[in-house]
Amino acid sequence: MSKAEVSLDHLFRVFTKPEHTDSTLAKIERHLSDNISDFLSQHVVTKKTSLEEIEKDFFSAAVPDSPEFVSEHAEALLDKLVAHSVNTYAPTFIGHMTSALPYFHLSLAKLLVGLNQNLVKIETSKAFTPLERQTLGMMHNLIYQQNDAFYEEYLHNANHSLGAFCSGGTIANITALWVARNQLLGPDGKFPGVAKAGLAAAYRHYGYENIGIMSSNRGHYSLSKTVDILGIGRDNMLTVHSPSQQLEAEKALAVGKAYQEQGNKLLAIVGVAGTTETGHVDPLDELADVAKELGCWFHVDAAWGGATLFSEAYRSKLAGIEKADSVTIDAHKQMYVPMGAGMALFKDPRHSNAVRHHAQYILRQGSKDLGATTLEGSRNGMAMMVYSSLHIFGRRGYELLIDKSIEQAKTFAAMIDAHPDFELMTAPILSLLTYRLRPSALAKLEDMPCDEASSIKKKLDSLTVRVQKQQREAGRSFVSRTRIEIAKYQGETTTVFRVVLANPLTTESHLSAILDEQLEIAKTMKLWSELTAIVLPKIA
Amino acid sequence: MSKAEVSLDHLFRVFTKPEHTDSTLAKIERHLSDNISDFLSQHVVTKKTSLEEIEKDFFSAAVPDSPEFVSEHAEALLDKLVAHSVNTYAPTFIGHMTSALPYFHLSLAKLLVGLNQNLVKIETSKAFTPLERQTLGMMHNLIYQQNDAFYEEYLHNANHSLGAFCSGGTIANITALWVARNQLLGPDGKFPGVAKAGLAAAYRHYGYENIGIMSSNRGHYSLSKTVDILGIGRDNMLTVHSPSQQLEAEKALAVGKAYQEQGNKLLAIVGVAGTTETGHVDPLDELADVAKELGCWFHVDAAWGGATLFSEAYRSKLAGIEKADSVTIDAHKQMYVPMGAGMALFKDPRHSNAVRHHAQYILRQGSKDLGATTLEGSRNGMAMMVYSSLHIFGRRGYELLIDKSIEQAKTFAAMIDAHPDFELMTAPILSLLTYRLRPSALAKLEDMPCDEASSIKKKLDSLTVRVQKQQREAGRSFVSRTRIEIAKYQGETTTVFRVVLANPLTTESHLSAILDEQLEIAKTMKLWSELTAIVLPKIA
Repeated sequence: MSKAEVSLDHLFRVFTKPEHTDSTLAKIERHLSDNISDFLSQHVVTKKTSLEEIEKDFFSAAVPDSPEFVSEHAEALLDKLVAHSVNTYAPTFIGHMTSALPYFHLSLAKLLVGLNQNLVKIETSKAFTPLERQTLGMMHNLIYQQNDAFYEEYLHNANHSLGAFCSGGTIANITALWVARNQLLGPDGKFPGVAKAGLAAAYRHYGYENIGIMSSNRGHYSLSKTVDILGIGRDNMLTVHSPSQQLEAEKALAVGKAYQEQGNKLLAIVGVAGTTETGHVDPLDELADVAKELGCWFHVDAAWGGATLFSEAYRSKLAGIEKADSVTIDAHKQMYVPMGAGMALFKDPRHSNAVRHHAQYILRQGSKDLGATTLEGSRNGMAMMVYSSLHIFGRRGYELLIDKSIEQAKTFAAMIDAHPDFELMTAPILSLLTYRLRPSALAKLEDMPCDEASSIKKKLDSLTVRVQKQQREAGRSFVSRTRIEIAKYQGETTTVFRVVLANPLTTESHLSAILDEQLEIAKTMKLWSELTAIVLPKIA
Repeated sequence: MSKAEVSLDHLFRVFTKPEHTDSTLAKIERHLSDNISDFLSQHVVTKKTSLEEIEKDFFSAAVPDSPEFVSEHAEALLDKLVAHSVNTYAPTFIGHMTSALPYFHLSLAKLLVGLNQNLVKIETSKAFTPLERQTLGMMHNLIYQQNDAFYEEYLHNANHSLGAFCSGGTIANITALWVARNQLLGPDGKFPGVAKAGLAAAYRHYGYENIGIMSSNRGHYSLSKTVDILGIGRDNMLTVHSPSQQLEAEKALAVGKAYQEQGNKLLAIVGVAGTTETGHVDPLDELADVAKELGCWFHVDAAWGGATLFSEAYRSKLAGIEKADSVTIDAHKQMYVPMGAGMALFKDPRHSNAVRHHAQYILRQGSKDLGATTLEGSRNGMAMMVYSSLHIFGRRGYELLIDKSIEQAKTFAAMIDAHPDFELMTAPILSLLTYRLRPSALAKLEDMPCDEASSIKKKLDSLTVRVQKQQREAGRSFVSRTRIEIAKYQGETTTVFRVVLANPLTTESHLSAILDEQLEIAKTMKLWSELTAIVLPKIA
């Protein structure tokens, strides 16, 4: 590769001279703007199937010494990076929580970088600060539906905050539970609170052996990071075994009581609204009551499912969410915003003061600087993407999209149910479902005693893994896989295909093509012949 | 505003139909691409000077009900948001750590959103995973300069990690010190480690009253968030009073010893390489030795100053950084990458395993999924921006930029020194400096006893505040202000102008114009007349 001149003049041009309209970058931009689907089909070629092959292009840790020409570098990016990335726009890639994005985000991304604001403080963000506050207010309203006077008082209040904008759901969950921890172990008489005195001193002051967080075993892995970083410890993550994919209120109460009887204090119950693996929703209303009875915080992780609140028809699936002390929602999931738009919302605008920090040159007392109550410091203006989406889609637009996704998931579930060689493993509550290949000859498998069927089940697990990999490597479509407990198999952990129906471009014929492809792949395997040859014993 | 149709067809078009070339968004894009400086000058009008005025445009918390046309929304964005944002590109805005960005980032931003990868796992990021690992490896190499065999072994190793890519320096600092905490209080015999057992149990097991973190009082406010969230508590943030803007090694040793003699354990010393307020660098080499003597972790917060390592001439200012256990660098500062590119680098690739987390459907044991050792979960592909910048600038390109910034800061310092009505308060170590307006009649102020001069000093503080505000509101240029201890005034806390010379577009004539403007503003004030009328007593 030829090297660009090492001179200040050359560098100055990189800052001041626009890309030529014939440059590679300008062409990339035009192609994206004209037809993103075509750009991706043309450039995401995935010829290299193994990660090790791809790594060869990213092998050196040497810092490049001399400058490269922008266009030559852009060619290299297309060849090494774009060619081996994932086509999240494709309607047949239904294994991810990211999907096609609307066109306007391409332009907004450019505007965002052109402005390059820093939302940590007003001085470097100006109008972006009220914009972010308003966006958080709208999301708060979507969940908590307070009256006008409430929002008038708190939306732009320097001493209160309706939520925290975050890079993603993990930081949102951590932020919410950090607030919860600091509330529970706050200042009390002469005790200055956990934020100042530390966790060990707080346990001593309040007389707690430990504090803990409870969720079903379908709770997101970010909760494990949360109890680690907050100093609570994973031993105090009360993961309730939930073969139904839902945290049962009665069990939650029993587990919480038992925990507290041992001298511990339950910090929070985390209800999930849309589990990552199956899209199930915990019984939020009942769990809110349990939290009240146990005297603990109630957090709802609605990173995936929160957008369901836009739908009149399905909003009730999240009934009780308005009782949560805090809620996590990711706009980069069902709100079709690019990666990087998590939010933690707080019912009580005073609560986030439990993590308020001030500094001299920034975040001065009484200022409206957003950085005073966020975990992150310098942050970009992603809130603009959420703000624009809320306006361009509107509640009714989102409603149409959400309803379509859920209805399409039902349709796909029916297709699977009707197919002799597939088995639906978890029916869709929202727009996720799981299933597997299971030859029609084995239709009665679920009636067999566990131990007798175990070798067949192992083979089915292995079939799922192998078909999923081969389909992924073929590169035409993508379905993910996971291992979950299946209620109808007495809670046995089973390997399943997992799909997320969120891409508005996905049609029924895409879905039936995906099933066809999976069956075709299976039929090339010896394992499939073995499985179809099995004769199940008659069951009385 | 007219409302768009509420129909799936309309929404489908938002996902599939490109913006028309005459649309507002397309025009915004073209204008940015053709001349970003002109776009910003034309649209960032800042007519509304007060935040309260701006808030009126972001007042409602109601979720918009019906969809809006994209172009109409874009007009509103220009009018309400862009018009009242901050022109970070302008060469006369020298009060921020963000500056003009090179043109190629505009195109990359669009590509990033077009691809919309999620770096939490390989399945949703593919080539972006080795790209991010390589980028972290290059930055590791910049600091630690290990041999080829080292990078060959660790760069793409599933069980090790050279660093963590983060949304910013705060998350990077937190990540580094989270790793440090979990290392210090790790598994030991039957004790399973703090990540599992929690902090209170860890203190009991190891027999520590408390653990603490030490830095100078110029340490970044993110350290205060760190000790809070990690459960250490702000009482255990040992903030060493440092009127020289630097943490003295001798003092650090004494403070650390005294802390440990009380039954506590010092977790980490944080050396700063480029303080936010004055750009000072702590004596890293000596502090590394102190950390060794105290048996604690040594972290270097080089969020700002890290890029100095690209310069042969100035690299030595950070001597000793290679002894740090962990280092924070923000590429969105002196590497001219858009907001959102922080990194924590670890000297020992095994260390990040102290915060390793696994989950079933993701981050499987033995996988190279990046999410297993990052605090964040879902993340975008910002690493591409850093990777591209490393190639397009190269080490030698960055060197020119860094050298130019530091030399320009020296030039500006000389201009201030030579000006009878200005006083240099902290000379530039890197590319930051602080100064104030001080009429020539008061040139001997620093020789006066503190108490006699106190009323004059208060007036000077107030002058700085008022001139800074008025200059900001005039909107032609921006210098920030802060309060710091000044060595030559016996460590008295003083209000100063703060500038960051990092924008490659800033010239000497911009700088002299800024001084002229400040003096002009001052001369309109009664306070200035009062100050110039003062006759200092003769000092023996």
